[in-house]
Amino acid sequence: MNTWSLEKRGFAPADAAGDGNRFLCANGYLGLRGVPEEADRELFPAVTLAGVYDQFADRWREPVNAPRCLFIRAFFDGKPLAEYRQHRQWLDYRHGIYGRETDFGPILVRSQRFASMAGPHLLADRYEVNCVQEGDLALQVGISTDIWDINGPHLFDFRMQAADTLAVEAVTGEKRIAVAAAQRVRADFAAEESPLQDEGGAFYLLKKRVKKGERCALSAFAAIYTALDGPDPARAAAALCDQAESRGFDACLAAHKAAWEGIWERSEIVMEGDEEAALALHASQYHLNAIAPRHADNLSISARGLSGQTYKGAIFWDSEIFFFPMFVHTQPEIARALLRYRIETLPGALKKAREYGYRGAFYAWESQEGGNEGCTDFNVVDVFTHRPVRTYFRDKQIHISGDIAYALRSYYDITGDRSLLQAGGAKVILECARFYLSRASAHLDGDEIDFADVIGPDEYHERVTNNAFTNRMIRHCFESALLLKEIFADQPEWFRDLLDELDYEADWALLPEALRRIRRPRVQNGVTEQFDGYFALEDCGLEAVRSRLMDPREYWGGDHGVAGTTQIIKQADVIALAALFPQDFTDGQLAANWAYYEPRTEHGSSLSACMYALTACRVGRLDEAWRLFRKTADIDVTGGGKQWAGEIYIGGTHPASNGGAWMIAALGFAGLRVQAGRLTLHPHLPSQITRLAFPVVAGGARWMVEVTREGGRIRPMC
Amino acid sequence: MNTWSLEKRGFAPADAAGDGNRFLCANGYLGLRGVPEEADRELFPAVTLAGVYDQFADRWREPVNAPRCLFIRAFFDGKPLAEYRQHRQWLDYRHGIYGRETDFGPILVRSQRFASMAGPHLLADRYEVNCVQEGDLALQVGISTDIWDINGPHLFDFRMQAADTLAVEAVTGEKRIAVAAAQRVRADFAAEESPLQDEGGAFYLLKKRVKKGERCALSAFAAIYTALDGPDPARAAAALCDQAESRGFDACLAAHKAAWEGIWERSEIVMEGDEEAALALHASQYHLNAIAPRHADNLSISARGLSGQTYKGAIFWDSEIFFFPMFVHTQPEIARALLRYRIETLPGALKKAREYGYRGAFYAWESQEGGNEGCTDFNVVDVFTHRPVRTYFRDKQIHISGDIAYALRSYYDITGDRSLLQAGGAKVILECARFYLSRASAHLDGDEIDFADVIGPDEYHERVTNNAFTNRMIRHCFESALLLKEIFADQPEWFRDLLDELDYEADWALLPEALRRIRRPRVQNGVTEQFDGYFALEDCGLEAVRSRLMDPREYWGGDHGVAGTTQIIKQADVIALAALFPQDFTDGQLAANWAYYEPRTEHGSSLSACMYALTACRVGRLDEAWRLFRKTADIDVTGGGKQWAGEIYIGGTHPASNGGAWMIAALGFAGLRVQAGRLTLHPHLPSQITRLAFPVVAGGARWMVEVTREGGRIRPMC
Repeated sequence: MNTWSLEKRGFAPADAAGDGNRFLCANGYLGLRGVPEEADRELFPAVTLAGVYDQFADRWREPVNAPRCLFIRAFFDGKPLAEYRQHRQWLDYRHGIYGRETDFGPILVRSQRFASMAGPHLLADRYEVNCVQEGDLALQVGISTDIWDINGPHLFDFRMQAADTLAVEAVTGEKRIAVAAAQRVRADFAAEESPLQDEGGAFYLLKKRVKKGERCALSAFAAIYTALDGPDPARAAAALCDQAESRGFDACLAAHKAAWEGIWERSEIVMEGDEEAALALHASQYHLNAIAPRHADNLSISARGLSGQTYKGAIFWDSEIFFFPMFVHTQPEIARALLRYRIETLPGALKKAREYGYRGAFYAWESQEGGNEGCTDFNVVDVFTHRPVRTYFRDKQIHISGDIAYALRSYYDITGDRSLLQAGGAKVILECARFYLSRASAHLDGDEIDFADVIGPDEYHERVTNNAFTNRMIRHCFESALLLKEIFADQPEWFRDLLDELDYEADWALLPEALRRIRRPRVQNGVTEQFDGYFALEDCGLEAVRSRLMDPREYWGGDHGVAGTTQIIKQADVIALAALFPQDFTDGQLAANWAYYEPRTEHGSSLSACMYALTACRVGRLDEAWRLFRKTADIDVTGGGKQWAGEIYIGGTHPASNGGAWMIAALGFAGLRVQAGRLTLHPHLPSQITRLAFPVVAGGARWMVEVTREGGRIRPMC
Repeated sequence: MNTWSLEKRGFAPADAAGDGNRFLCANGYLGLRGVPEEADRELFPAVTLAGVYDQFADRWREPVNAPRCLFIRAFFDGKPLAEYRQHRQWLDYRHGIYGRETDFGPILVRSQRFASMAGPHLLADRYEVNCVQEGDLALQVGISTDIWDINGPHLFDFRMQAADTLAVEAVTGEKRIAVAAAQRVRADFAAEESPLQDEGGAFYLLKKRVKKGERCALSAFAAIYTALDGPDPARAAAALCDQAESRGFDACLAAHKAAWEGIWERSEIVMEGDEEAALALHASQYHLNAIAPRHADNLSISARGLSGQTYKGAIFWDSEIFFFPMFVHTQPEIARALLRYRIETLPGALKKAREYGYRGAFYAWESQEGGNEGCTDFNVVDVFTHRPVRTYFRDKQIHISGDIAYALRSYYDITGDRSLLQAGGAKVILECARFYLSRASAHLDGDEIDFADVIGPDEYHERVTNNAFTNRMIRHCFESALLLKEIFADQPEWFRDLLDELDYEADWALLPEALRRIRRPRVQNGVTEQFDGYFALEDCGLEAVRSRLMDPREYWGGDHGVAGTTQIIKQADVIALAALFPQDFTDGQLAANWAYYEPRTEHGSSLSACMYALTACRVGRLDEAWRLFRKTADIDVTGGGKQWAGEIYIGGTHPASNGGAWMIAALGFAGLRVQAGRLTLHPHLPSQITRLAFPVVAGGARWMVEVTREGGRIRPMC
């Protein structure tokens, strides 16, 4: 079995939305959905850009889809070929190459394409036609402006040119950001070439009278730039595809493949013993690596990566809690970029806190460029009334600031490198702590501090008090703020100046007391209560709750949802706490919490299974850990996961699961722990695996970790 | 026009639910719904008992309906008479007598009946048949056990006896409370009498061959007792109706009428200039007087009075804020009974506070016997899914404790009598204040105290912070607690002992600071913000919100309701605050608040219009005040008001509007203010009225207030 390739035979339009995700090509700058070149919008094609957002009318802000480069439609004897007699598509995870092979009857088409990892603005396609019969072949090749948007349109004022270099330029509606696409086509066969330019795009039409058995191949090179990349995106795009054309497809492909080889060399987990699992782990690592920012040092990764516009293309806590671990352990410059995105968007977080009447940094729940809050007050549509439902993710999910502080602290703890703290990270931690100081509720007649009216990781329960996860994250944030003084003990002036700059004296004085007074969760029979009053909720079992659904797309959460008034939770919450702060729990408590919460968890989020798997490793439930690993790692192979929240389409790839798969394998099965550059292993190898091996960067050096039945070992790599 | 009688001609089963309320007879002990004697359960007949509650299975606890005394069904030539060829029914507000006159074809029936105000266990009916044709007349007279319950059944183990005295005895399901009904029948005509006893009840069957033009009359005397009234309710019931029979109908009626005359002498507002309005005011005063506890000194009045089982027969804040004023100014012993109910149910309030993790007294939102909380977590049924909806009335409507403290303080302020404070009222105020001290949220970094996560009078907005009405009530509660020391300055030991008994030292020390720090509402252009963030809600107008309804029975409130995310409110909230605390506002602010909030108010509660009317008087909007007075006073004449909250039937009479009508007339139009027994008037007489005159009790004396165009005057009554 090839553990590096996903292949699918046959073609069904109903699968197109899911396949577009599973067969995605991406390079951190853009994502090219896995649909055939000729697909029209019913098959959800898109070239989604990272970090470029637009709002149309009062709809949700979302990332911009660029003009569709690499569009190719074949005609035979004057008719467009649309019937897929046989079809096969595949994705090469090793090298990020999408391929397809289709029997259209008169012709067979075989192509491969990629979004270059060697230069993020470049896309290329090699398209071959084998003629089964004699006739008139025509290929329409170019840039289509028939763009599928969820909340669009986003591009306006199109300017098109069909010369040697095809060019389409437009501007976004809200911020007038220029988006330019260019494309060149090199046919290997003598064709009658004519430009074709209409409102549908800019194309060449290549025509040829072909004989039976004749083979006609072409290479297409496309480039995309926006005004965020530089002053003249159209010229840059034209120049890049001219240059690519002159280098040729094979040379571009070779550079792309070499870049991917480099990525794998730094991050690949070799898993032996189960080839399906090895494939799923490759898929997970492929998808997360493919969407990582490598062209910029201050971008993060959105919750659905670059697979489309769902989740508003926004940055969630997924970045810090689910993506960050793989990167900090393998490619720390990317972990750093994720955090620099947060440092640079601190002003947005300060602004959001002020809007809600608080001080400090309240980060956006769905962060877009500049820290803009993409989350609205209405995030779900009721399936019965079709009305938007007031949700509280934006205003109550306050753990986001603590999650960011947690990752900043982790970066320091793992790497021992305090430079990021010095370059703004310390300021972020202090402002997050300040936010929590201002958000706390004290009592007139008691010592404890509450965090009331919040939402924890389990979003089904809105507006709860003292969510255990949230309160622990806040404690950690306070601890991290206080620790900064020790971290910078050798630079007391710098630290004092920082506090002065932030006018932090009064807050600094409050921190130790606040840390002491913050409410600790109730523990009953070793089980931590998820929030005040959780144990008193209806405890009726997952299937009973599921049986109350009247529509499969119903939203489970909130007061109207079937789960909201029960103990059924969406995703790991106390178990996420256990996974991130295992030292808070005895082994018995870890086991008790796992046993209590797992059957009460719907796992209705891709953020859930990996937290349960990590804790399952620690409590020796290795069969469960394995099951949850497979659930996590398989998600973008099989195309599972929820597609709907109420009436809102939420499909896409699952970067958090992708990152979770790495976490389970490396931190769970191998039990890797890195502290200030020092590595330790506490292996929990499920019976299905015979060997794990993977590289880790730590303490400025590279290490190879290997775990077998005989135990673990760590070798320096030269 | 007769301003003392409501009359309706014709008969439509669809009106029966509403007419049962409008034509209600009641005497504080029981309510006899205004449906004809022969009505079966499709017409919602009931004899509802005050203060006797029962829960069946897991349904809502509600008051018990007694066996249906005074059931009379006529047969002619062996057939039950069911066709109402002509029908007329009326209610005499002056004397609380229900009458009906029906042409059944072969016979005409005319009857009158009452629930005796002279002795609350007695019911009597005078039933006359005029025969239009010759034939066999039969009358089935007695006690039916075909009881209409909303959440029943409630009575079990029936024991029946059809002897000279008919008797039905049963016990409630939950607490095994014996409920006994007895009845005697005296026919004025010679009839063949036979007892009839089956599972449908205990009856006599009176048969006679009648001639055309013959007249047959009977009197029926019924009595109801429960085990809460004494040790042998069956014997007491039998004895009472035997005694009544021996006195005869006319004597019983005379005693009943004399009792009502006494009530009117003490409470009647004479309103001249608009007879329809005078009728409505009589109706309002009738309905509120009819349900007042006169047989006990420690009962209150439920939100739908004795008109049935809706609102669980529970005591709401209506008692203290809407019923209390008329009584304290006219029949203070009833005002005292309402408050003694609260004093005696303090243990229930202490228990409820503890259940929610607070100290002090958190009174039940829907208080049943012993202060039992009748309100559940699910008070509305979604019309689309038929699922119960989590509402927060029970846990978040914390102003209830302050409302009770407010009435206790008012009782003292108005009467100058501190004996009620001494007899438990002071303790209630202190425990309510203690509840608020424990409910307050302070900040680590600021001075203000918040009351977060509450519901104010406007129930459409759930879980808001710093509701202006609530925070003001809490301030008043703190002020009242502190004032107690001055009120009892001449008994410092007694007061010190009280604080000691309550272990109140630490709380007493907190009160002044809490009072100072409690958050004051934001005021913008003179308008007080209803709660933090209210002004930022969608401001789209009442009709826009109404137009979003997809089902007329939809619940407007909460996050799923059409109003919940807008500025549309259910009922007076800031304006209720303005009505109760006018001294907090300048005239300009009163006017600004009225002008802002009135168009944004759905008046979806019978508690709304009267607060707007009171404030309209103060700001000189007398035409609006008049309109709202009519809306308030007319409600149980015309049968208006909401019948549904989601899928829950909430029909019944509207005691709060009844009390509101008195308030508008006396406190608004006449501008009466009583302070420690001293009366002042600030008349605001609408153009529709030429004269108002009404008695007031104050300072141990009785006064007659009169307001005309020429001004107001107050005369002592001898």
